[in-house]
Amino acid sequence: MSRGFNFGAGPAMLPEEILCEAQNELLNWHGLGLSILEIGHRTSEFTELMTQAETSLRKLLTIPDNYQVLFLGGAARTQFASIPLNFLTKHNQAGYLITGLWSSMAYAEAKRLKNAYCIASSEGSGFTQVPDSSIWKLQDNTAYLYYTPNETVNGVRVAKPPHYDNLPLIADMTSCLLTEPININNYGLIFAGAQKNIANAGLTIVIIRDELLNTIQDSRLPTMMDYRVQTSNHSLYATPPTFNCYLALKMFHWIERQGGVDSLYRINCEKAARLYKYIDLSTAYLAKVEPEARSLVNVCFTLLKPELEPLFLEQATQNGLLALQGHRTAGGLRASIYNSMPMEGVERLINFMDDFARKHAI
Amino acid sequence: MSRGFNFGAGPAMLPEEILCEAQNELLNWHGLGLSILEIGHRTSEFTELMTQAETSLRKLLTIPDNYQVLFLGGAARTQFASIPLNFLTKHNQAGYLITGLWSSMAYAEAKRLKNAYCIASSEGSGFTQVPDSSIWKLQDNTAYLYYTPNETVNGVRVAKPPHYDNLPLIADMTSCLLTEPININNYGLIFAGAQKNIANAGLTIVIIRDELLNTIQDSRLPTMMDYRVQTSNHSLYATPPTFNCYLALKMFHWIERQGGVDSLYRINCEKAARLYKYIDLSTAYLAKVEPEARSLVNVCFTLLKPELEPLFLEQATQNGLLALQGHRTAGGLRASIYNSMPMEGVERLINFMDDFARKHAI
Repeated sequence: MSRGFNFGAGPAMLPEEILCEAQNELLNWHGLGLSILEIGHRTSEFTELMTQAETSLRKLLTIPDNYQVLFLGGAARTQFASIPLNFLTKHNQAGYLITGLWSSMAYAEAKRLKNAYCIASSEGSGFTQVPDSSIWKLQDNTAYLYYTPNETVNGVRVAKPPHYDNLPLIADMTSCLLTEPININNYGLIFAGAQKNIANAGLTIVIIRDELLNTIQDSRLPTMMDYRVQTSNHSLYATPPTFNCYLALKMFHWIERQGGVDSLYRINCEKAARLYKYIDLSTAYLAKVEPEARSLVNVCFTLLKPELEPLFLEQATQNGLLALQGHRTAGGLRASIYNSMPMEGVERLINFMDDFARKHAI
Repeated sequence: MSRGFNFGAGPAMLPEEILCEAQNELLNWHGLGLSILEIGHRTSEFTELMTQAETSLRKLLTIPDNYQVLFLGGAARTQFASIPLNFLTKHNQAGYLITGLWSSMAYAEAKRLKNAYCIASSEGSGFTQVPDSSIWKLQDNTAYLYYTPNETVNGVRVAKPPHYDNLPLIADMTSCLLTEPININNYGLIFAGAQKNIANAGLTIVIIRDELLNTIQDSRLPTMMDYRVQTSNHSLYATPPTFNCYLALKMFHWIERQGGVDSLYRINCEKAARLYKYIDLSTAYLAKVEPEARSLVNVCFTLLKPELEPLFLEQATQNGLLALQGHRTAGGLRASIYNSMPMEGVERLINFMDDFARKHAI
């Protein structure tokens, strides 16, 4: 099979031109006589790469000087513990907005380790909506408000960031960072695993405001989880995931070449609009999430004849439309259409869905 | 410059045939229509890769069935905290054997988080020896004994694993796993960052005995650090570093093709012996570590005219002999000669050192 369109929710599709670049220089990077897979993380060449990656990300997201940027090894899920361990004490608590599996998991971890409460949850609706802000309940001594702007499992988006004066906002942007413009000043901390829109799996980006960093008190944090240690060591306290950082820099340059985040956002809106429009007009497919809460990057849907889903997936794969199965906890179908998914992939998916529906008379 | 010999201590050299394989299949892995950098970690193809990697490692090291094998994301340094957090309570402590920078760091972390003490230290000697076991002092209520069989900074090796009846032994084998035969049954837990002998940076392998796993009591561990969670989820609690796992499997196959760990050990002994012999006979170079404590894989030495070191490094690089500078805390020179460094690289280094000494009349 030639290269297909990968609709997996993550690890996700990467632009082919980046893969080709990486392929071409894999044995000898910059003529240094070694592979980027082999380069020491304290060499001047790698230090320069890290500086470029940070500079490029700062430019793409207009990150102000009073924010630190970290490139950390491992999965984003480590942050579920790092956040409460860094910012909560015995005398305060954190509020969590629950809109899907990932915010639920982050909340459970915070509650297990420190004090946390639920501001509002849409679990009762089967995560098909975002709880209206009029019913959110904020408690005293809240150190931060945590939410997940995009939930990948059910495909739910919190379109507008929560805002309360003087309350730091923390966002898990693993699936949406760089897919839409954000105002960094709204956030105390943003984190994102790399495997959707940034690089391959194994890198987590953290963007943190100095003011929030200065509130950390606990001196018995695991050192690798201490944001103060990681920022003061410029992400090099331990060996960073060097190859992932290299790919991230390539992706940042690719985003620049696409016209930046604003430009990709317009394309992402158009891709999602076309797919949801087709589904809504179709009698064969159903998208359950309320229109105003629909994800721009994870389009979840079902077949009205769910018994046909295995056949749908098999034939889609044969047509180069890959990894369309829904999350194992949610079932159904899911098309993840991150930055790297071109419009052509979405068009081919819609055509395939339409053919499939006709053939099976649904 | 064509590809050189990379003597960096890590991230380190990888066999060129592995890099070529990865390069060839980077755009389309196994004809699946996507890159290994893009593949979902819960696909059957990736699950099969993980099974193969574990099976292959079990075979290479003869790992018994009562040991679990983990492939975790992030740097090995996370284990410095995970180990005391998993195995220590308020009522016990751990003993640390200090033979260099890494065991010192692990000890400091354990002491900060729980109760730990130093069994013996060779810091007074400038880490040029291993404290004789006759002076090791074991205390009551010791839950585990921790040591670092190979210290990369000064190039120190603990040739014989410590042994006390009924006391679990924990070893940081980041720089020596798979470079010499070990009897897994001697150990309660072994961990190793991948970037020396296994794959690229961003993967940590943990091998843990069931009996030790069953002693874990703390229920307020960060979940990502909980060995019980990681083992029961077969390393897939969070997204693993997929590409690193793929490279690790290639490396395990490469080791099999070399004749296994025993065969590599013989070559490693020969490489180290030739280099130390040259240094010891030379009037220009000095290896400070006592012969019986010398590392097989990190050969540390100095020039008797240290002012010539910058020139040595510059000319070595011009000759394709890369990354020979010592660790930033130790200075001097260091040749890391892990599994992937062929005898030819060591011979070329010795020839270069000899030429350099003659030219500068030392």
